[in-house]
Amino acid sequence: MIDQPGSVMGNGTIDADALWHDIMETAQIGATPKGGICRLALSEEDRQVRDWFTRTCSALGATVTHDSMGNQFARVEGEDPSLPPIAIGSHLDTQPTGGKFDGIVGVLSGIAILRTLHETGRRTRHPIEIVNWTNEEGARFAPAMLSSGVFARIFTPEFTMGRTDPDGMRFDKALEAIGAAGEERCGAHPLAAYLELHIEQGPVLEAEHCTIGIVTGVQGMRWYEVTVTGRDSHAGTTPMSMRADALQAAARLMASVQDIALNRPPHAVGTVGMVSVRPNSRNTIPGEVCFSVDFRDPNDEVVSAMENSFRDRAGALARAHDVNIGIREIWDSPAVHFDQRLIDAVSHAARSAHLPAREITSGAGHDAAYLARIVPTTMIFVPCAGGISHNESESATRDDIAAGATVLLHTLLQADRQLAPASRD
Amino acid sequence: MIDQPGSVMGNGTIDADALWHDIMETAQIGATPKGGICRLALSEEDRQVRDWFTRTCSALGATVTHDSMGNQFARVEGEDPSLPPIAIGSHLDTQPTGGKFDGIVGVLSGIAILRTLHETGRRTRHPIEIVNWTNEEGARFAPAMLSSGVFARIFTPEFTMGRTDPDGMRFDKALEAIGAAGEERCGAHPLAAYLELHIEQGPVLEAEHCTIGIVTGVQGMRWYEVTVTGRDSHAGTTPMSMRADALQAAARLMASVQDIALNRPPHAVGTVGMVSVRPNSRNTIPGEVCFSVDFRDPNDEVVSAMENSFRDRAGALARAHDVNIGIREIWDSPAVHFDQRLIDAVSHAARSAHLPAREITSGAGHDAAYLARIVPTTMIFVPCAGGISHNESESATRDDIAAGATVLLHTLLQADRQLAPASRD
Repeated sequence: MIDQPGSVMGNGTIDADALWHDIMETAQIGATPKGGICRLALSEEDRQVRDWFTRTCSALGATVTHDSMGNQFARVEGEDPSLPPIAIGSHLDTQPTGGKFDGIVGVLSGIAILRTLHETGRRTRHPIEIVNWTNEEGARFAPAMLSSGVFARIFTPEFTMGRTDPDGMRFDKALEAIGAAGEERCGAHPLAAYLELHIEQGPVLEAEHCTIGIVTGVQGMRWYEVTVTGRDSHAGTTPMSMRADALQAAARLMASVQDIALNRPPHAVGTVGMVSVRPNSRNTIPGEVCFSVDFRDPNDEVVSAMENSFRDRAGALARAHDVNIGIREIWDSPAVHFDQRLIDAVSHAARSAHLPAREITSGAGHDAAYLARIVPTTMIFVPCAGGISHNESESATRDDIAAGATVLLHTLLQADRQLAPASRD
Repeated sequence: MIDQPGSVMGNGTIDADALWHDIMETAQIGATPKGGICRLALSEEDRQVRDWFTRTCSALGATVTHDSMGNQFARVEGEDPSLPPIAIGSHLDTQPTGGKFDGIVGVLSGIAILRTLHETGRRTRHPIEIVNWTNEEGARFAPAMLSSGVFARIFTPEFTMGRTDPDGMRFDKALEAIGAAGEERCGAHPLAAYLELHIEQGPVLEAEHCTIGIVTGVQGMRWYEVTVTGRDSHAGTTPMSMRADALQAAARLMASVQDIALNRPPHAVGTVGMVSVRPNSRNTIPGEVCFSVDFRDPNDEVVSAMENSFRDRAGALARAHDVNIGIREIWDSPAVHFDQRLIDAVSHAARSAHLPAREITSGAGHDAAYLARIVPTTMIFVPCAGGISHNESESATRDDIAAGATVLLHTLLQADRQLAPASRD
């Protein structure tokens, strides 16, 4: 289906040194003393890296535009002017103590592909667009993925424009302040496909010595707030038989979150991350315990089954411990399934390049999760050290990133050949 | 052994109305809008209630003195000047939102007995002392039972004098400020016995329709700080098999606290009252969980056995969950066993008065727990509504308190007859 990497582009493979250089160069914009980056969306540092993006892509023959949400598009034309572009993207904003790779690898590997195309003079059928989505992290303006969300019609433009940062500045004012707002309405131009390379942000690829994660989708995810209400009383004077100990019921219910996930291998995960206890006094039996529950699985039916098991367990514990247990769902993000043809193309590209690869589901959200709602989409993961991300010590290797970019290039070329006009928009 | 209540004193039984009147009168000193009392140790309100104590006891023929810790003693002489006094006492200070009964019932029932002795002209062999111990609650100066603790040589006078309240005022300065410091060195005069009537502060007597709790001792009690250390990581991207979830190990260990206590009926209790989770973020697997453990039983060997079971369980969970578990004992208060002759006297007095009674162990600390270290001691409990105490809604009935005072009177008379000179000091 796809040629060996070397033969497709002739000598035009990814220039790994140039890609690594770009990562290290942009890492200076907002660099932190501990080797990370603080480059909040629409900040002065973001303006600087946006300018770097425009300059660099323009030098590689691309036309750079930005839309009403500040999303940047670096476009090179294809052979067939009737086809919509295939987009490659991610984001250049970071967490306040973010790393050098999260998001950045996805944009800069797109630029590395522009470089390959530019230097070899190769033309694709479709136009190619490298995209830098505004405010993916959600660190300055919550929630995350605000502008790819508008592009994919998850959020209205008004919703996004009205978000405010912790200092009370609105998103639209922040866009204006750095001149990032463009004239094109966000989402106005169609895409033929969307591809995103990203560090895994988890430990699986590294542990299994895989260079490439063939991402099949994004997990379904539900969040709950659980409140266990008993009766607070004196820890010394209340016999065991006369207690309604909210914490004892809660502890058993918290433990069930792990049991329930372990009962649904291999993908299900369940986590209790937050706990609060009232009155939280050493010699008082707790009268109320609140905790969070996070269930995820690539299959929404498994998430539903986990929820059902959890509710059953809560009911039994409420009866056994003489407490009330309230369960409130506060977020439901259905599973996303990426495009099978694109998944196959990634798999084939990895195999052709003799790169160890495995299928994997994204546990975290990405711009691609929203894009998948409107256009054939997939992602490629590369390992990061210890699975650590959103941290200044985030680390990935030059070779793994270059391998990921190579697979991205060959997936793009495959998509360029295979995507039927009917699937364009 | 003991006569029927009516016959012992002739017509001199407890004046229930006068006792209830005293409770309601002193409840005006520091009264809160919700029907409770705020009368912190050595405050202006405490000074007022101390003056009331001196006035009232003096009018009943007692000589009132106070020692170097401010403990007040209202003494009436007995027939044998060579015998040390039998003391009846408790405390008149309260929690910031305390009730009308905790401690107060013990002092005012002593005054009710003075009234009976005064009105009937009856003389005991031993002198009788009604004691108001300073700062039992520990609400203003921590820890609790500071001055009975000095009397019983648990604390040095220097330790207690140097305690400071939340505003930085020292105990000795607070004593001076309300003129509560006396010349006698605290603990200088011996006692023949110590008796204390108290509300149960637990739900047992009420639930079992018992008027009298024959208190056999104070539970042994140990407190622990437990720290579970795992590895915090992303709740979405970390497979179940690669987690070191501190909360999952902690939840199971917290649940074991209840199981361990239930396995040692009928008295053992176990409580987890405080929990803290780090980083306490909804989508991060907790890396550290700290929680408190409180184990109590009337038998110190049972407390030790509970600790051993808990440590075994912690070891197994640490291995199974790939976490470290540290257990630090922060307090060990051995069990107190009250004087068997006095316990028998209480039992007999209750039976003679046809009052439903049961043996019970005190789950909370009291001045009597310290006095028991140096002198034959026991306590009598009466019910309080719902077991609620340290609360403005604390409630006990006139009849139950009068019944408790009656049992206290007859226990006193029995002790007065029976205590051999050899057990005096």
